[in-house]
Amino acid sequence: MLTDPCFPVTIEMIEQAAQRLQCVGVRTPLLESPYLNDRAGRRVLVKAEVLQRTGSFKFRGAWSAISALDDDSRKRGVIAYSSGNHAQGIAHAASLHGIAATVVMPADSPALKLANTRTLGATVITYDRLGGESREAVGEALAQERGLTLIRPYDEPMVIAGQGTCGLEIAEQALQMGVEEADVLVCCGGGGLSAGIAIALAAKAPQLRVRPVEPAAADDTCRSLKAGQRLSNPANPNTFCDAIVTPMPGELTFPVLQQLAGPGLTVNDAEVLTAMKQALMRLKLVVEPGGAVALAAALKPASAPGDAVICVLTGGNVDEHWLARAVDC
Amino acid sequence: MLTDPCFPVTIEMIEQAAQRLQCVGVRTPLLESPYLNDRAGRRVLVKAEVLQRTGSFKFRGAWSAISALDDDSRKRGVIAYSSGNHAQGIAHAASLHGIAATVVMPADSPALKLANTRTLGATVITYDRLGGESREAVGEALAQERGLTLIRPYDEPMVIAGQGTCGLEIAEQALQMGVEEADVLVCCGGGGLSAGIAIALAAKAPQLRVRPVEPAAADDTCRSLKAGQRLSNPANPNTFCDAIVTPMPGELTFPVLQQLAGPGLTVNDAEVLTAMKQALMRLKLVVEPGGAVALAAALKPASAPGDAVICVLTGGNVDEHWLARAVDC
Repeated sequence: MLTDPCFPVTIEMIEQAAQRLQCVGVRTPLLESPYLNDRAGRRVLVKAEVLQRTGSFKFRGAWSAISALDDDSRKRGVIAYSSGNHAQGIAHAASLHGIAATVVMPADSPALKLANTRTLGATVITYDRLGGESREAVGEALAQERGLTLIRPYDEPMVIAGQGTCGLEIAEQALQMGVEEADVLVCCGGGGLSAGIAIALAAKAPQLRVRPVEPAAADDTCRSLKAGQRLSNPANPNTFCDAIVTPMPGELTFPVLQQLAGPGLTVNDAEVLTAMKQALMRLKLVVEPGGAVALAAALKPASAPGDAVICVLTGGNVDEHWLARAVDC
Repeated sequence: MLTDPCFPVTIEMIEQAAQRLQCVGVRTPLLESPYLNDRAGRRVLVKAEVLQRTGSFKFRGAWSAISALDDDSRKRGVIAYSSGNHAQGIAHAASLHGIAATVVMPADSPALKLANTRTLGATVITYDRLGGESREAVGEALAQERGLTLIRPYDEPMVIAGQGTCGLEIAEQALQMGVEEADVLVCCGGGGLSAGIAIALAAKAPQLRVRPVEPAAADDTCRSLKAGQRLSNPANPNTFCDAIVTPMPGELTFPVLQQLAGPGLTVNDAEVLTAMKQALMRLKLVVEPGGAVALAAALKPASAPGDAVICVLTGGNVDEHWLARAVDC
C-alpha cells in the first residue's frame, strides 16, 4: 500500500528516522514465552519497548525530532512539557546530542521525577499546576521567548516518524519468527506510536494490522474510531494507566488510524494489573500500567482472534507502589 | 589467542553452537542506563540474559547439547537432574526439538516449579531428597536403565559451547557500543557460563576479560583461583543466591578459568538485593538473586576498575517473595 499523501509521515521519513537511530537506540527484542502462549492458547509475541533508552518508546520519537534539527535550532535548544516518558526521552536525546533541553513540569511533581529529569541532563522549569497555570501555555510562552524548538509528544511529524521505527522492527522480527499475519496491539494515548507503527506496517507488512488498546475508562480513540470523528475523554478518568490518558486523539494521528487501524480494544484496570504480573514473572520485564494494556488485551484471545498476536509493551517507568501491587496480585 | 588444546571446548565449537542457535535463541540486548552510569561513575553495560528463552542463559547450553545429538539419541530422549534453570532450559529445548525429556526433581519442590517444568513439556520424576536419595544417583540410574542421554549442567563440553555463544554476542555488541577494553563480570556457579564466555572472548575480543562473581558465603571459585586448585564450598552456605551455589568449581570449567579469567569477585546479599532493585527500576528487568551478583559487583567501581564494565544478568526466575523484598528495599 502506498502512503496516503494526506498522512503527516511517509514511509521514507520513518526509514530515515531509523537510519538516524541506528547504533543509538535499542533494537528491542520481540519476545515469546511458552507460559504466555499456553495461557492465551496461541502465540503471543511481545515487543519489549520497556528496554528502550529511558524505559519507553518515547526515546525513538525524541531522537528522531532532535536529530533532524538544523544547526541554528540545535544551538538554541529544545523544550517539552511533560512529566512523563516524553520528557525523559527528550532530555536524554538532547543530552546525547549536546543540545540544551528545557522540560516544563508541575511544581508538585514527585521529587524523584524531578531528580531523574535533571540526571538525564535537562533544565527543569516548574509551574503551578494547582494555581491553574497550564503546561502548554508555559511551554509555548517559553519557547517563543527564548527561541526554543517545542517538541510536542504526538502531534509532531518527526516524532510520529520516530515511533514508526518500532513498526519497521516488528515487521522484520515477526517474519523471522514465522508470523506473517496478525493483529498488532498497541497501547494508545495520543496515538503517535499507533500511527507510526501503522504507516510502517502498511508499507512493509500489510498482513500485520495495528489495533489501538486503551483503558476502558479512557477509551477516546476506541469510541472515536467507531464514531468516525475525534471524541474526548471524560475529565479525570478513573484508571491507573495515567501515562496514556490524553484529552482526545491527536489531530495528525487520528486520520492515520482511521484509515489503517482495526477497531480499538479496551481492558479494565484489574486485567492490566494481571498483565503487569505476567510480564514480571514470565517475561522478566517491568511494565507500567499504561504500557501493559496491549498485553492485557493479548491475553484475552476473544478480543482479537487469530493464531498469533503481537503486542507492544510501551513503557516501564512505574513507581514502587504499583510495582509492589503487581507482584502481590 | 589460540584455544588451548587442553580446553574442553574450542572457539569452533562455540561458533557451531551459535549457528544452531540462530533464529531460535534470543540475541539478548546489551543495555545501558544513564542512571546506572551516574551511580557507578562509569559506563555499565548489562547483558540481559534474563530475556533468554526460559528466563536464563541455560537455554543456550541446553539447545547446544540437544541440537548436537545423533538421530538414535534423539529417539531415546534426554534426562537432566535440576530443579532450576538448567531443567527449564532442557525441557524447553527438547520440546522444541520434539524429543522426550525427563527431569529429576525433589518430591518436595514447590508445586509451581513442578507445574512449570511440565508446562515446558518434560516428564517429571520426583525423588525423596529428605530420605537421603541423591539426584545424581537417581538421574544416572534412570539414564542407564532407559538409554537416555544425561545432560550435565556445566561439566559438559556441548553445554559449555552453548554458553559461549553469549560471549560471541558480547564481543560484537560491546564493540558496537564503543567499548573495546573492559572486565566482563559473570555470575558464577559451576563455571559453565564463565568458561564458555572466556573462551569466546579470548578468540574474539581479548581486551575483554572474564571475572567470575560469587556470593561471599559461597566463593569456591574465587578461593580456588587464588589457591590454584579446586576448593569446596561449605555445606549449606548462608546466602539467598541459591541458583549459583554448587559444591565446587567444575572439573572441565576450572582449568579454563585458571588460564583465561581475572581474579574472582564477591558480593554480600544486601548488595545483591540492591542490585535487584536497580535492575527493576533502571533496566526494567526482573533478576533472580544468583543472576544479580555480577551487577552488584559492577555497581562497586573499586572492585573492578576501568572506564567501563560489562556484566551479565544471568537469570530472572525469582519467586514472588524475593521479588517483593527487592521492590521494598
